Amino acid sequence: MKKKDFKGFPFIEGGVCAAKGFRANGIHCGIKANGDPNKNDLALIVADKPCTAAAMYTTNKVQGAPIAVTRRHLEDGIAQAVIVNSVNANTCNADGEEKAEKMCVEAATALHLKREDVIVASTGVIGQPLPIEPIVEGIPELVKGLSTQGNTQAVNAIMTTDTVPKEVAVEFTVGGKTCRLGGMLKGSGMIHPNMATTLTFLTTDCDIDAELLREALREVVFLTLNRVSVDGDTSTNDMVCILANGMAENAKINAESEDYDTFKDALYTVLMNLARMMARDGEGATKLIECLCDGAPDDRTAEIVAKSVITSSLLKAAIFGEDANWGRVLCAVGYAPADFDIHEVNVTLGSEQGVILVCEDGAGVEFSEEEAKKILSEEEIRIHVTIGKGEGVAVAWGCDLTYDYVRINGDYRS
Amino acid sequence: MKKKDFKGFPFIEGGVCAAKGFRANGIHCGIKANGDPNKNDLALIVADKPCTAAAMYTTNKVQGAPIAVTRRHLEDGIAQAVIVNSVNANTCNADGEEKAEKMCVEAATALHLKREDVIVASTGVIGQPLPIEPIVEGIPELVKGLSTQGNTQAVNAIMTTDTVPKEVAVEFTVGGKTCRLGGMLKGSGMIHPNMATTLTFLTTDCDIDAELLREALREVVFLTLNRVSVDGDTSTNDMVCILANGMAENAKINAESEDYDTFKDALYTVLMNLARMMARDGEGATKLIECLCDGAPDDRTAEIVAKSVITSSLLKAAIFGEDANWGRVLCAVGYAPADFDIHEVNVTLGSEQGVILVCEDGAGVEFSEEEAKKILSEEEIRIHVTIGKGEGVAVAWGCDLTYDYVRINGDYRS
Repeated sequence: MKKKDFKGFPFIEGGVCAAKGFRANGIHCGIKANGDPNKNDLALIVADKPCTAAAMYTTNKVQGAPIAVTRRHLEDGIAQAVIVNSVNANTCNADGEEKAEKMCVEAATALHLKREDVIVASTGVIGQPLPIEPIVEGIPELVKGLSTQGNTQAVNAIMTTDTVPKEVAVEFTVGGKTCRLGGMLKGSGMIHPNMATTLTFLTTDCDIDAELLREALREVVFLTLNRVSVDGDTSTNDMVCILANGMAENAKINAESEDYDTFKDALYTVLMNLARMMARDGEGATKLIECLCDGAPDDRTAEIVAKSVITSSLLKAAIFGEDANWGRVLCAVGYAPADFDIHEVNVTLGSEQGVILVCEDGAGVEFSEEEAKKILSEEEIRIHVTIGKGEGVAVAWGCDLTYDYVRINGDYRS
Repeated sequence: MKKKDFKGFPFIEGGVCAAKGFRANGIHCGIKANGDPNKNDLALIVADKPCTAAAMYTTNKVQGAPIAVTRRHLEDGIAQAVIVNSVNANTCNADGEEKAEKMCVEAATALHLKREDVIVASTGVIGQPLPIEPIVEGIPELVKGLSTQGNTQAVNAIMTTDTVPKEVAVEFTVGGKTCRLGGMLKGSGMIHPNMATTLTFLTTDCDIDAELLREALREVVFLTLNRVSVDGDTSTNDMVCILANGMAENAKINAESEDYDTFKDALYTVLMNLARMMARDGEGATKLIECLCDGAPDDRTAEIVAKSVITSSLLKAAIFGEDANWGRVLCAVGYAPADFDIHEVNVTLGSEQGVILVCEDGAGVEFSEEEAKKILSEEEIRIHVTIGKGEGVAVAWGCDLTYDYVRINGDYRS
């Protein structure tokens, strides 16, 4: 991705329904006995015509059954619908793939599509058989309620321990035509994406070549979703997918070009904002931690250092306590498996309240504890680590470690 | 290390003073203004004669000043005393090495030793200047109080957030002579030893060749201290050292032999027990988690998997909540960077209350939630993961993640 200034894009409403020719819906079908009837658990996204589609999946060796099924269905690079449930991950069950296929078949039948054109995803508890009956019984209602304003119901359905829905969409111009790209994402624990992400669903009406769509997704995911960690646990069900229906009627993006760069910038804007929202809403989190590492010999080294910082449990707890314990930043920089001279490391802590230097050339400098406290009282904390004089730079996002993380995860299955 | 049954050794009292010819002491010298006068902060261990010595250090690129000084002093493989303070890590300070040397010089002078024969270590907050005056002023009293029962005062001095002192000693026989090996260790946060360990001090009266002592330490540390993680953070000040004064008058261990194996077994017994104590007393911990991985293609693969399990924040929180969420075990097994077939993985959960199979061939099996709850109500939880039919095996130790970990680390510096 070229390092140039973004022009910036106007944000628009609508999430997965922002792009032309996409409808969505979400319902409570009752996968969990006695579940909250006001919390949806099943969502559907449908395009008006077949889409060029791309996806990336978790690198965990344990992979949810829906991932195996989606991989097969996307072999031809074409999809037209996404069905997704929360509550149950449909992972580590003997009959998992059969049930994931069943979800596709039922959705395809109701929508008059081929089952191979349906993407399926699940999120929730691992290792409990998926109750398929409420899903099958819910699909007619789900299909009936599809609308171009259905993104709100859909995003509600993919939330698990998320406290806020996460949707972003932007408008951009390709070849004189207005295009839209939007998406929704669920967090908020077991978040340490590796070559893929948590569940993220993207839609666009931009017309783009399948290979370029895959390449853009891969490139941007590495810079956004893969730069987030909530708890260091890489999920078994991570998936990000994008559907492009071409209904903006732009001249198809067929080559690396200015148009392609614009598309990638739009994708970056959506995914970077979703990534930040995911980190900010990490399980139990009260603060977003953004670590910028620069001066590295290369971007990869900068990424390793930035991720090491935002992953440190000790630092995360200190940020929760609004304690300017910068020694923990340096400690995490120090154990990052990367090559640089620790005596060239500078660290600043910042937020809306200002920025202070706390470490220079690998050693502490005096600073005002009062000022530090004020800076750390904000909800977005920025840690800037410079590790030398190189050109490498990377940003990573995490969150603080709180009592609520322990509460939420001490008894998640109940 | 050969996989044979231990004969077992009798445990004895005395910690670092258990071996013949070692005295120790600990005092409160007042490194922290208004610190608790009943909590020691400065310890000294002295041998009656020069010792063969070996040490291992943290692999963190940020290394405390005492580590640099100790490395220099141990270049000749000889030492006779150890001085160590808590409260302040003497790390990331411009004058750190000067002050660490000063600690050695003052101790050496009071003990009529060469400063190069003194090992120095520090633990506590990173990046705050070490108040050297109370240490210098305290050394005469520290030396005056040295005794063969001083281990209790010494171990109190190295405790930070530890809730219990950690000492182990055993008696063993080499060439018909009774030898002793004992030690003390401090935990309990920033624990993720890598090629070294947290602060651990060992003494023995066994006579052993310097090279074999180093080799034995290296080998056993990899199997014990390096198999513990409390929070995934590798400290800047980790050090383990051993002093051997030869006063048991055994025929010197000069070669790999049955005697050498006995020595290593004794060292393993002491360090394995200290490692377990450290994990059990991890910051805020209420439970010890022991993960045994077997059936691996090799020991290294087994170690990677076992450490991945005991490091998972999600699993640690579930164990705190006594929730048999075995899907999180499988998730952590799945993202371990190691090569095996996830469909051959079996998992059992066990404790003094019994053992239950929760996952077979990578898929869940039915089990009694009631029985699981009873098993998880114990203080020592054993997770047994079999990943195939290979000979590789490893054990790793960790602890649960609790509200108290967050409380302790949210405001550690205050």
